[in-house]
Amino acid sequence: MKAQVIKTFGDPSVFQIEEITKPTVKPGYVLIKVVATSMNPVDAYIRQGGESHAAPALPAVLHGDVAGIVEEVGEGVTDFKHGDEVYGCPGGFKGTGGGALAEYMLADQRLIAHKPKNLTMEEAAVLPLVTLTAWEALFDRGNIKKGQDVLIHAATGGVGHVAIQLAKWAGANVYTTASTEKKLTIATQLGADVGINYKQETVEEYVKKYTNGKGFDLVFDTVGGDNLDLSFEAAAINGTVVSILTYSKHDLSKMHMKGLSLHVTYMLLKIVNEDQRHRHGEMLNEITKIVEAEQLKPLIDTNVFTFDQVGEAHKFLESNKAIGKILIKNNW
Amino acid sequence: MKAQVIKTFGDPSVFQIEEITKPTVKPGYVLIKVVATSMNPVDAYIRQGGESHAAPALPAVLHGDVAGIVEEVGEGVTDFKHGDEVYGCPGGFKGTGGGALAEYMLADQRLIAHKPKNLTMEEAAVLPLVTLTAWEALFDRGNIKKGQDVLIHAATGGVGHVAIQLAKWAGANVYTTASTEKKLTIATQLGADVGINYKQETVEEYVKKYTNGKGFDLVFDTVGGDNLDLSFEAAAINGTVVSILTYSKHDLSKMHMKGLSLHVTYMLLKIVNEDQRHRHGEMLNEITKIVEAEQLKPLIDTNVFTFDQVGEAHKFLESNKAIGKILIKNNW
Repeated sequence: MKAQVIKTFGDPSVFQIEEITKPTVKPGYVLIKVVATSMNPVDAYIRQGGESHAAPALPAVLHGDVAGIVEEVGEGVTDFKHGDEVYGCPGGFKGTGGGALAEYMLADQRLIAHKPKNLTMEEAAVLPLVTLTAWEALFDRGNIKKGQDVLIHAATGGVGHVAIQLAKWAGANVYTTASTEKKLTIATQLGADVGINYKQETVEEYVKKYTNGKGFDLVFDTVGGDNLDLSFEAAAINGTVVSILTYSKHDLSKMHMKGLSLHVTYMLLKIVNEDQRHRHGEMLNEITKIVEAEQLKPLIDTNVFTFDQVGEAHKFLESNKAIGKILIKNNW
Repeated sequence: MKAQVIKTFGDPSVFQIEEITKPTVKPGYVLIKVVATSMNPVDAYIRQGGESHAAPALPAVLHGDVAGIVEEVGEGVTDFKHGDEVYGCPGGFKGTGGGALAEYMLADQRLIAHKPKNLTMEEAAVLPLVTLTAWEALFDRGNIKKGQDVLIHAATGGVGHVAIQLAKWAGANVYTTASTEKKLTIATQLGADVGINYKQETVEEYVKKYTNGKGFDLVFDTVGGDNLDLSFEAAAINGTVVSILTYSKHDLSKMHMKGLSLHVTYMLLKIVNEDQRHRHGEMLNEITKIVEAEQLKPLIDTNVFTFDQVGEAHKFLESNKAIGKILIKNNW
């Protein structure tokens, strides 16, 4: 089968189209005919040689997100059969059956679910990693509750745009930040109650304006770095901050004076450590229902790529210009 | 009435014995005839001029912990009556009715509870702040569960020694650290399953030895500073660290790679912000039951002080030589 293979870590030029052996199905696994994948920052970090604990051995086929059609099922697989349309983030990492940048992908059945009926394959392919991340952040860790004031940073980011919708679905009052009016308009169309232009208002200002100085019950930081300090500042006393990017050094005094909780969610851990992988399938089943109830939809950047253009898709991600997710369609 | 008063923040010599007006009971409050108080680090921080958000206006009577006898109750008080033996941590902070270093203390009824029948007043006086802190850390935040591997730093510290007992009561496997065999012996007598001498074993060594390299499900850091990095190191993937001292700067990469949760608990916040004060009374009622079931007992240092010797008690706390809590008895 055809695949985009990397033999060395490096810049986006490391991808090479090659003919490799089609995977053989095995017990508990499903062979998926890939229709599309999407870009997530972790795909680029792995390509660059980072995330060594999660990177597959070289040569490797990268990319986690997939939507496709079940070609064949292994022994012990009962929830899926030949012809089913599925989605998930089952591969391209250490301990998985290979990535999505190929004609076929071998996927642990615990990591996938049936695709929402009201989405195209392409739309479904951009959801898995970001919805799993947002779900774990808001529900499993952040313990989001109806009526809470929730601040979500990066309104139109991959994780941000689904987090807005899931927080709204959970009954929260959703505030979100972005740098342009265009992004904030998209965010309110997706259901955010209030869009905050962080270039025009300080944390102190918007905490005062929207929470009467109390702060937000839950802050979801999808940005990391210095923004985490702003998240601590925006949180209420005994509030909660959830971050998906905490590689930096922070003065935790602000956490102390407010008695904050900080949760770091890293969705790859369940996959690479083979610890509670079934939770991914369970969460995706919930997400399928929410999508089918028209409470969640993907935001896809107008720049769409094909499997021949994976290097360009990586370059575009790294330009930080995408609005929503970057879709990569299998044109083979 | 007689009181130890401070008119300026500073070293332990700022305490002066004075005759001040006895407080008048008011609605929702209880006037307590003070039998004893205890030392907590926060009492010393406030005396030094720190914790400005929690410090009372000067001149002030300090100290939160109290055990005493109800002298008089205000309008709307139904759970307490004249002659009741009570304990709690109701004063000496901003927004409270005055501290415990006086003959009488005016206490918000929501912040106190009936003293455990099987403890003396002196024993009860050392428990409130540390048990409220440990309870919030282990239960409200840390979500401790039966069968979990729990590591508690500072075995014979004020918070540490009650945390060991509460964690054991919750059905956890309790591991605890200290610097001497004497302290570790006390810790195992209090119920810890394993005492770890942190001067003789590295985190890597004891994580390997006791958890087979997996790490602890819950780490309770009562030490702060560099020790918080060791707590991150000792925690399992997707594990939880609870800290009561996070004034320092930390590289959060370790949190990221393990998807950790960090909760900062600061028991004064409920008091000084008048936010859910009733939780203190509720927690103390639970603690009374656990003490009466002989599952929790205080550890009191052999150096005991009187109300005439408050300055010496503060000096002794600052020497870091105490084992367990420092008791201060009302000798007036």
